[in-house]
This record gives sequence, structure tokens and C-alpha cells, in this order.
Amino acid sequence: MKFSTEDLIEGIRSGNKRLIAKAITLVESKKAEHRQQAEELLKEIMPFTGKSIRVGVTGVPGAGKSTFIENFGRLAIANGKKVAVLAIDPSSAINKGSILGDKTRMEELAREENAFIRPSPSSGFLGGVANTTFETMMICEAAGYDYILIETVGVGQSEVLVADITDIFLFLKIIGGGDELQGIKRGIMEMVDIIFINKVEESNLQKAKTTKLELKRALDFIPAKEKGWKVPVLLGSALYNEGLSDVYSTIDEFISLKKKTGSFEGVRVQQAEKRFEYWVQEYILSMMKKNNSVEEAYIQHKKNASAMVFNPSTEAKLFVEKFLSKGPD
Amino acid sequence: MKFSTEDLIEGIRSGNKRLIAKAITLVESKKAEHRQQAEELLKEIMPFTGKSIRVGVTGVPGAGKSTFIENFGRLAIANGKKVAVLAIDPSSAINKGSILGDKTRMEELAREENAFIRPSPSSGFLGGVANTTFETMMICEAAGYDYILIETVGVGQSEVLVADITDIFLFLKIIGGGDELQGIKRGIMEMVDIIFINKVEESNLQKAKTTKLELKRALDFIPAKEKGWKVPVLLGSALYNEGLSDVYSTIDEFISLKKKTGSFEGVRVQQAEKRFEYWVQEYILSMMKKNNSVEEAYIQHKKNASAMVFNPSTEAKLFVEKFLSKGPD
Repeated sequence: MKFSTEDLIEGIRSGNKRLIAKAITLVESKKAEHRQQAEELLKEIMPFTGKSIRVGVTGVPGAGKSTFIENFGRLAIANGKKVAVLAIDPSSAINKGSILGDKTRMEELAREENAFIRPSPSSGFLGGVANTTFETMMICEAAGYDYILIETVGVGQSEVLVADITDIFLFLKIIGGGDELQGIKRGIMEMVDIIFINKVEESNLQKAKTTKLELKRALDFIPAKEKGWKVPVLLGSALYNEGLSDVYSTIDEFISLKKKTGSFEGVRVQQAEKRFEYWVQEYILSMMKKNNSVEEAYIQHKKNASAMVFNPSTEAKLFVEKFLSKGPD
Repeated sequence: MKFSTEDLIEGIRSGNKRLIAKAITLVESKKAEHRQQAEELLKEIMPFTGKSIRVGVTGVPGAGKSTFIENFGRLAIANGKKVAVLAIDPSSAINKGSILGDKTRMEELAREENAFIRPSPSSGFLGGVANTTFETMMICEAAGYDYILIETVGVGQSEVLVADITDIFLFLKIIGGGDELQGIKRGIMEMVDIIFINKVEESNLQKAKTTKLELKRALDFIPAKEKGWKVPVLLGSALYNEGLSDVYSTIDEFISLKKKTGSFEGVRVQQAEKRFEYWVQEYILSMMKKNNSVEEAYIQHKKNASAMVFNPSTEAKLFVEKFLSKGPD
């Protein structure tokens, strides 16, 4: 890294997008010396973090997530806010280019001075399946962004990852043929705070209203995630800027409610604890991986465990003893 | 432990309930020397495990779980099977006695030669919030039990723990006043393989049928957990032995389907891998805890992380370095 930690911090604080991008690349790096500098950087910027509204956005491919984020972002900017757009994509090795990767997407938003768009990080990190979106978010907050919009393609565990670092979770739905509620990913309905039915026009308005009723009924079957909040189902068209201001004010309402009940702070504390536990595992795993024989042992013992050669706990004990006696080098 | 590993193994294999209980106490123990013997024992009995049908049973307090397990167990025994009943209860420190703890429960089943009932283990284990139900199950399998019924009180994460070690998940529902589907715990509907509406009598049969329809409709909103399986909603009364043979044959059908599609083996492989990962963490945590200063450091760094003194990843790095340099003693 050619930039000193001081350079990067100054760049972040002054809103220099090139240096913000460099800082993000730093925290995404798997190299030990970069990791060291990344921790120093994160330590220094902590006092400037925590002030944004962290919004997760999910929906099936074709639901219009990019268009939504672009035009919602522009609306927020028109309201005097700064907007950062990130992506969480634990499977980006497979889906390369499917998320924020296409340069022609979000062109309008990208041109805005008060917008910052960061494509998906490379998949995996250190030993685990993780990502550094949380740390990237810290950097964007220190740079003064008011809204952090985090897009997920909805593959694998990505919604859980997003839910673990955001204040509010938006689900974009489109109406198609057939049974509207089939094909919604397991668990999504229980994570969601706001549903936006997108691509609603004159011609499919009736269908959209039916879908809304079905979603409302489905939501009745699910206990409230946030006390005192009934998940609203909003209709609109992100492309034609219809319904976006409803979403904007509904987010405001939701955040106000969370701040009033204390769940805003409470959930963030839990998220930080989870993040700590996550990183403890990451660092231990990464130290294991530095030692080839330890990594081989991990793979072999896990394979034995899944084949039930020995009991999984026996395999685990054998491995941990091996690891801790050999040490991390 | 006064018994040698050989004694215990012989006891298990010959179906000696007193020695089975001793072996379970051994795997539940947190003491390092017991842990060592437990691993030896588990290693030896591995070839005799894996042949049972592992059934999770959940439902709100008052749903009749104990009566269901008792009479279902007796039905299985009447069909020539051996039945073991376990409980998973991560919060048993709080709910002591609420699960399998009452000696007057399952009296009839307890008297059966081919039944083995084990009350809830003490809460927590080594460093984590875990439990040894998986390992207890191994012992019961080696002792020749054909059905392992695992009861959960449905507190906290207990259903997830049960789902992580069983082949099939049963949900017991009772009909009460008001909105039948409110109050069902988040996520339950997505984990369930069979629903049994219990305590159905002449007087509430119509209501039960309505509840069944509502449940069926709710299930339509949820993508299939097991390909080719539509979750059946069965009616009956465990107390009066009504509907239990339906449950019995439906479990058979479900297991046959899973064996045909390969998901029976596939899921068990995944479960064993998860179990391995879980135990790697447990052992690492337990080694941390052995060193007081390491444990204190863990608590302090986690507290700092949640207060966002430093970034959670920074706190994690500081802690892991401290831990690995001091070592586990």
C-alpha cells in the first residue's frame, strides 16, 4: 500500500473518493501487512462512525434492485443527503458481474458528487466465507455518508449477513405470472421491515394490489420482528420514480420507532458483539491456514467427521490439540 | 468415573440402562479427564451408530409434547421398536424442571423395557452455549434404539439445535381461542416436516379443521424444505391414542422419500461437518477458559467491541494475538 494510514484517514475525512476506494481495498485485502494497516485505520476512524442509516436491499434477480437503489439514492441526495452503495455477495466468485459489476448500471447515481458506489468485494476472506462489508461501511460512515445502501443478490447466506449489519431491511418484489408467493426465499419474510412491489404500472395495478393483499396475509402468519411495527407493503415503480418518497418516509418512521424503543442502539450493540466473535474465528482460522500442515489437518479431520470415521467431537479434539501444539507459527 | 471405557461400551452394547446413563453422564461432563474418556468411548462406539430415525418434537408448553412422546413411543414399541427419549434445552438453568424433569411424566413409557428416557442435560457446555445431545444420541444408537425422540421446549435457539441433529421435525399445535397462527415462533414453519394438531375432540373438531386449513395456507407461502414433500397437517389426540399411527406411517414415508432422494445421507453428512466445526470452536473456547487471563481478555475485548471503542475486528485481532501468544497453558 503506497498510502500511509494518515493519508488514507485524511482522504476519508475530506471525502476524497479515490482515497476512500483505496482504504476499502486495504480492508478487503487478505495480506497480513495490509490487515495490520487496516486495523490501524479502522481504529482511528471509529469516532467518526455510527451516524448513518444502514439499509439492506434484497430481491430476486430482475426485481429492479439497481434501478431502485439508483433512483432512491438520487432522491436522498435531492434531500441533501450523501449516499454510499455497497454490495454483499458471498458467492461473487460464481456470480461475477451479476452485482454492481456492470459499469453501465447506476450511471446517473455514479455521476452525483454525493454518491459513492463500491462494487462487490471478492468472495471469501481469510479462512472463512466472510466479507468485509461491515468494515467498508465504517469507512463510508467516517467519510460522512448518511445512507449506506447494501445490495444483496440473495444467494446463500447473504441476507443473513446483510441483516447482521444493517438497521433496516427492504425486500423488492415484482409481480409475475402464477402464484405470487412461491419462490420467495426461505426466511426472507421474517427478516423484512419494508416490502416494495416494484414495476407497478396501469396495466398490472390490479394484480399488484392482489399481491399486496397476499403478502399482507402472509405477514400475518409471521410474528413481528420489530415490536410495534407492521411491515408495510408499498407499491411503485423505481424506474418512473413512483412510490420512492413513500419508501423514504417509511424508512424515517421505522428508524424513529427503533430509536424510541431503544432497539436501534440495542441491535447495533448485538451486531458489534457478533462481529467481534466472527473476527475472533476469522483470525484463528487465518492463523491455522498460515501453517500448511494445520490446514491440511483441518480438512482431513473435517472429512473424517463427515464420513463419521470418528465422532465429530473426537475429530475436533484431535485437530485442536494438533493446532495448538504446533501453534500458528 | 468409576467405570472403565470397556465396561461402559459393553454396557451400552448389551443395553444395560444403568451403564447407558453413566456413559451419557460422562459425555455431558465438562471435566477434562472425563472429556478425554468420553472421546475414547465415542470413538469406539462409532461403528454401531447411525441406524436410528432421529425425530425432533417441538410445540408450545401445554401442546402435549410429553403425552405425545409417551404414547407415540409406546406405539413404536408395540411395533417391535426400541425408543430413546432425549431433551434439548439450552436454557434449562432457567427452566429447570420444565422439560422431562417431572418424574411423574411419561410413567408408562418409562416402565417399558424397550424405552430409555433421559432428562435434560445441564445448560451450557465448555465455553459455549452448547449441549451434548448429539453425542448422547450416538450412545443411544449404539445401544440399539431405533427411534430417538428429541423434545425441545422451544426456548431460544433450541429448535435450530434440534434441526441440526435430527432427520425429521414434528410440530405439535393445539387449538385455542383467537388467531390460531399468531404466536407461532419465528422460523418454526420453515423447519417443520409434519404438523400434528393435538387435543382434538368431538367438541373442537370443526375448529381443528379450520386451523388445519389455515396452517395449510400458511405453508403454501413457504418454499418446500424437502423436495417432493408437502408438509402434512394431521389431527388427533395423543392422550386418546388417536392419530398417532398416522404420524408413525407418515414418518416412515418421509424417511423413505429422504432415502430415495439421497437427502437422508446428505443432510447427515452436513450435520456431522457442522458438528465438527462446532466442536473445534468449543475446544478452542474451552482452552481459552482454562487460562483466566485469556478469559478476562475475551470478555473485555468483546465489551470494547460492543461499545465500539475500537472496531470489532481490531478487538478480535488484539484478543487472538494475546490468546495465541499466551497459549492455552
